[in-house]
Amino acid sequence: MITISSSSSLSLGKLIAEKLGSRSSEVARKRFPDGELYVRIDTDLADETAVLVGNTRTDQDFMETLLLLEAAQGRHPDRIIVVIPYFGYARQHMRYRAGEPISSYAIGRAILDYADSIYCVEIHDERAMAPFNGKIHNIKISSTLADFVAKWKVDYVISPDDGGKDRADSVARIVGCESMALDKKRIDDTNVEIVNPDLELKGKRAVLVDDIISTGGTIMKASQMLVKNGLSWVSVAAIHGLFINQSAEKISGSVSEVAVSNTIETPYSKIDVSGAITDRIQEEIK
Amino acid sequence: MITISSSSSLSLGKLIAEKLGSRSSEVARKRFPDGELYVRIDTDLADETAVLVGNTRTDQDFMETLLLLEAAQGRHPDRIIVVIPYFGYARQHMRYRAGEPISSYAIGRAILDYADSIYCVEIHDERAMAPFNGKIHNIKISSTLADFVAKWKVDYVISPDDGGKDRADSVARIVGCESMALDKKRIDDTNVEIVNPDLELKGKRAVLVDDIISTGGTIMKASQMLVKNGLSWVSVAAIHGLFINQSAEKISGSVSEVAVSNTIETPYSKIDVSGAITDRIQEEIK
Repeated sequence: MITISSSSSLSLGKLIAEKLGSRSSEVARKRFPDGELYVRIDTDLADETAVLVGNTRTDQDFMETLLLLEAAQGRHPDRIIVVIPYFGYARQHMRYRAGEPISSYAIGRAILDYADSIYCVEIHDERAMAPFNGKIHNIKISSTLADFVAKWKVDYVISPDDGGKDRADSVARIVGCESMALDKKRIDDTNVEIVNPDLELKGKRAVLVDDIISTGGTIMKASQMLVKNGLSWVSVAAIHGLFINQSAEKISGSVSEVAVSNTIETPYSKIDVSGAITDRIQEEIK
Repeated sequence: MITISSSSSLSLGKLIAEKLGSRSSEVARKRFPDGELYVRIDTDLADETAVLVGNTRTDQDFMETLLLLEAAQGRHPDRIIVVIPYFGYARQHMRYRAGEPISSYAIGRAILDYADSIYCVEIHDERAMAPFNGKIHNIKISSTLADFVAKWKVDYVISPDDGGKDRADSVARIVGCESMALDKKRIDDTNVEIVNPDLELKGKRAVLVDDIISTGGTIMKASQMLVKNGLSWVSVAAIHGLFINQSAEKISGSVSEVAVSNTIETPYSKIDVSGAITDRIQEEIK
């Protein structure tokens, strides 16, 4: 087995290789003067299982993944497994308006044209996986999140919106505390309004749990509202830290602790998902 | 028939639609705050031939093309034809070193998973099309180039390197003048050395013809060497104007005229290839 990391997942790829007991391939990369990407996989893959780890967060990430797949196939591996720690372009599982693409479908199709299966971590909308007949596996990491959160000794695990209620419930169950979801009113792409929950907050400790931190607007508003209503300590734990517009520092300045997983590699990626990923891969290849 | 233009080919797409007598679809585009692209095709395509015009020059171009294809397919057209005026990632038709991708193959595969056929203009390495069993058509535009160049009344059509000799010959034959290829020694990605040709240059007029202007290094060195050796007037005509590092102004300052085609839309795109493209499309759909 050989693990290949795209430039979006160099650290996570290494952790995955270690846990799989696999070798890691060196990858040569450069941009040509015209902006085109060059990649080269420097390890023979013949008759091996190749595990390619890389996000589809940016258009450049996606191109790198596709070129690495083409390169991998030219080395005739026995099987190609793609790990997409953060599956970008997966916010939409249907055509809300005629003429829209289901972007995740385009990306999944292109990748599965080369790969045998895809493993992703907590895809934003699980229904986006439906067209792929089980070839895309979504790895839930509630227990990984809970193991990390446990040390904070919180009274509440709180989801900033109703969509994250199941995750908050799962984490709270493992931590052994209460959970709830805030009422969020979305005003536009970046602005939301949070409604005060019916909960005893005075002197209590809570963690806000979410799947993606984008601009962090929701999280910031939620924490401010909770503290204003009596909460004594609040932290944030999320799976994917996009941290748009350098929002990481802003958020970390307004709560006691911020932690995200290493699906996207950031200075706040304290929650390691490599074990959750390799457990699932080992189920497939055993 | 409905023509859909990606943002790389808004003007050319319009010219193609006019010549095909097709309607053009409005396309809505925006970037979400997290950087992901949103597109929407606002015209019904049911039972129509959809013609999608867009480059694969940048990773963003490729993503837009792929999302537009996914959007188009959701509108159930009868057939999808993709025009790639500048087929980027096509400089390499084979794996020179083990572990390299054939990038054009990855791009062509992803597009042909949605499209019935691809038309591109003077792809850099025609051998890159071989794996596609005739589904990618390469449109040569020597006669379009010659018709444009004719007005310059040149004595010579000169290719800056041996690889472009056939093109220079074709253009010269139509213009009715002599042609030749310079001897080019490539030093690295951006540096080349040009050898003085065995040709009467004193008081003569010439056009340098090339397929791609990247940094323009080759063209600049060639024109300087030719003028130094007696040429009285020199212009440049190329198919694809990449003009890396704002080189267009530099080149246009050192020769009498610069013209490239509208495969890539630049201020120097004076050579219109829409007719050459639509002639070929009409052969397919008649």
